[in-house]
Amino acid sequence: MNETVCPPAKGLLAGIKVIDLTSVVIGPLCTQILADHGAEVIKVESPEGDVGRHLGGRGKSPGMAPKFLHLNRNKRSICLDLKHPEGHAALLRLLRDADVMTWNVRPDSMARMKLSYEDVRAVKPDIIYCGMIGFGQDGRYAALPAYDPVVQGSAGVAGLMAKAFGEPRYVPYVLADRTGGLIAVQMIAMALFHRERSGEGQSIQVPMFENMATQVLTEHLYHRTYVPALGEAGDPRLVNASYTPMKTSDGYISLTANTNPQVFPLFDAFGLPHLKDDPRFNSVAARFAHVQEYFQIRVEGMKKHSTAWWLDYCQKHDVPAAPYHTLESLIDDPHLADVGFLQQREHPTEGRLLDLKPANTLSSGTREDWLPAPHLGEQTRQILAEAGFTAAQIEALLASGAARQHRADADKDRP
Amino acid sequence: MNETVCPPAKGLLAGIKVIDLTSVVIGPLCTQILADHGAEVIKVESPEGDVGRHLGGRGKSPGMAPKFLHLNRNKRSICLDLKHPEGHAALLRLLRDADVMTWNVRPDSMARMKLSYEDVRAVKPDIIYCGMIGFGQDGRYAALPAYDPVVQGSAGVAGLMAKAFGEPRYVPYVLADRTGGLIAVQMIAMALFHRERSGEGQSIQVPMFENMATQVLTEHLYHRTYVPALGEAGDPRLVNASYTPMKTSDGYISLTANTNPQVFPLFDAFGLPHLKDDPRFNSVAARFAHVQEYFQIRVEGMKKHSTAWWLDYCQKHDVPAAPYHTLESLIDDPHLADVGFLQQREHPTEGRLLDLKPANTLSSGTREDWLPAPHLGEQTRQILAEAGFTAAQIEALLASGAARQHRADADKDRP
Repeated sequence: MNETVCPPAKGLLAGIKVIDLTSVVIGPLCTQILADHGAEVIKVESPEGDVGRHLGGRGKSPGMAPKFLHLNRNKRSICLDLKHPEGHAALLRLLRDADVMTWNVRPDSMARMKLSYEDVRAVKPDIIYCGMIGFGQDGRYAALPAYDPVVQGSAGVAGLMAKAFGEPRYVPYVLADRTGGLIAVQMIAMALFHRERSGEGQSIQVPMFENMATQVLTEHLYHRTYVPALGEAGDPRLVNASYTPMKTSDGYISLTANTNPQVFPLFDAFGLPHLKDDPRFNSVAARFAHVQEYFQIRVEGMKKHSTAWWLDYCQKHDVPAAPYHTLESLIDDPHLADVGFLQQREHPTEGRLLDLKPANTLSSGTREDWLPAPHLGEQTRQILAEAGFTAAQIEALLASGAARQHRADADKDRP
Repeated sequence: MNETVCPPAKGLLAGIKVIDLTSVVIGPLCTQILADHGAEVIKVESPEGDVGRHLGGRGKSPGMAPKFLHLNRNKRSICLDLKHPEGHAALLRLLRDADVMTWNVRPDSMARMKLSYEDVRAVKPDIIYCGMIGFGQDGRYAALPAYDPVVQGSAGVAGLMAKAFGEPRYVPYVLADRTGGLIAVQMIAMALFHRERSGEGQSIQVPMFENMATQVLTEHLYHRTYVPALGEAGDPRLVNASYTPMKTSDGYISLTANTNPQVFPLFDAFGLPHLKDDPRFNSVAARFAHVQEYFQIRVEGMKKHSTAWWLDYCQKHDVPAAPYHTLESLIDDPHLADVGFLQQREHPTEGRLLDLKPANTLSSGTREDWLPAPHLGEQTRQILAEAGFTAAQIEALLASGAARQHRADADKDRP
């Protein structure tokens, strides 16, 4: 247990305090980005803890799955039983000087827990109260529970895969959770800006389904944009079984070519320079109108040379191309090594870890200190003390079960 | 041509002016979200125009592809030749009272055009200057051109698909562009907040490759998180050929079940209630350790009933499930109809359109007015006049070719 007060972090959100009731991926991703930019994030967990502690692979300690570590760095954890009146009261006390509260259960659960926007606003009038939910509350799916595959399947992602490859499949990462989490960060940051100018707080709801459908439909509504429709939905360049990394003579390459200056060097290397004058292939519009034939020419042509040859040739001719990476080869990518992307960190209980550097550069910098992902309730005492509870009050909360403090040996008792 | 001054819009970013030099998807998506929340977005286009005008399907007018319409609503367009000294000077004049400038070419191109951060800061010291780029500038891929498939392939998305389904494939929507665009909105909004408190402007670079790799690796670094590794990379629940919508007796359903209260009703409906006591399947951890067997049981069990039966049963038992949608059935989804998601709008030249309502709800509301996606240089005169150019100066800019104004009949001249 470390009673040292958490030093203020640097970054765009320095000075912002987030009370974070979220779990698994969508919410923890959102608040991890806020934390990386300097916000103080207090992760409020029930006695059961974030279920993401157990879902994301086997770690070294119980409740410290590797995926949990990546989504919860730079946060501290307080364990409160919100069903216990004293636990609920302690949360409201934390909220008194908070700027943001995040949650990702159904809105009726928040109301049942007496943590609706009205409840929270009563203790902090200008709170930014952001819920990441499954479905918009004005439609018939409002009460449905939502998880990533349910949203990928209902919002058309799996349907796009079926259109392209013949069978409905989910994208093998939690795309709907991550899209929603990234968008929640936008909404919170805009609301912080707005509060700064207007003094006004905000209640925000970020529905996964509608957000995922927005990404799918702005891309693929396509000729059904018009009323009446001008043609079919679906961008045929993307919803296409040929839309894959390209096979070379010895592997794969990630390559795309749209404009004439990008495509014509390929025609030369294919040994088909006359295609530069072929009316089917001599402009963006022409190739688009003959997309199937064009893709086939590329498939055949790319097999003429090795991946290394193509990477070199494309770089010389400014054709967009890069290595094709498996998950394993990505970890060893030399550009990522150049930028120091995977940094080794020492976690006090989980040992030496690969941690990801924030991807974006800002002239005023990102957070400089690094907090290891916390155990369940690791900073309960510390956070209660910072909120003004006396030592005796803290001991009473712990004795009643309204709050719980992680002990280094407590994991032994967990299932 | 409409000389009416654009009225200030409502929303979290009301009063913010964005000078937007971006094109295609990543940047237009970013600035469309800023616009939807009330920012005034001035789209600055070269005489060739945003290439996205031509790439996203066949529209009714040349240069008005349907995908372009979705990514450019609530913006106005000014056409400037930035290689022309007077065109460049006009842009700097627009920047004098701008808050944000967005761009998505390579940084050396910005320097060549004399539009580096230093150049822009000289006319607007607290500008938020946000570049959406392919690769971080400190690594060996810094100068590579980047397009969505190049980044999906190099950042491991196609590799994940190969791990799951046997062959490398791109996700059939521009995931890397969209992830980068969503993240650029975060950075800009945080920088606006920071500027409000500190007075400090910001230079931001959002590299697609590192951002996409972050999403892939925080999900899938998994047991390779540890040094030395505890096991393999890749979350086996996601990187799995069974990770698909489930076949029912008459179609598909989007369904997931993790916890015992979600899984046990399925075991009952499968006619296999004894599995609730089977040590291989009676807890999250147990099912995770026997994931292949568990998935197989689900596949077989789901075939026992129809999609409609399952949707009803799952709703009653609070098991996360929703319809599986194709692109076409998504457009007709009844929940989306309930929330008014697809709104019919009249575009002055493109006719009746389906437009997407902003997905998120905010207590202070989103933008109320709606600007139709502009033709190339449709508001050139208007925007120059607002920036203080006299009528004679505007005519001189148009006469020299430094600026161009869209004429309703000019499209006839386009290829």
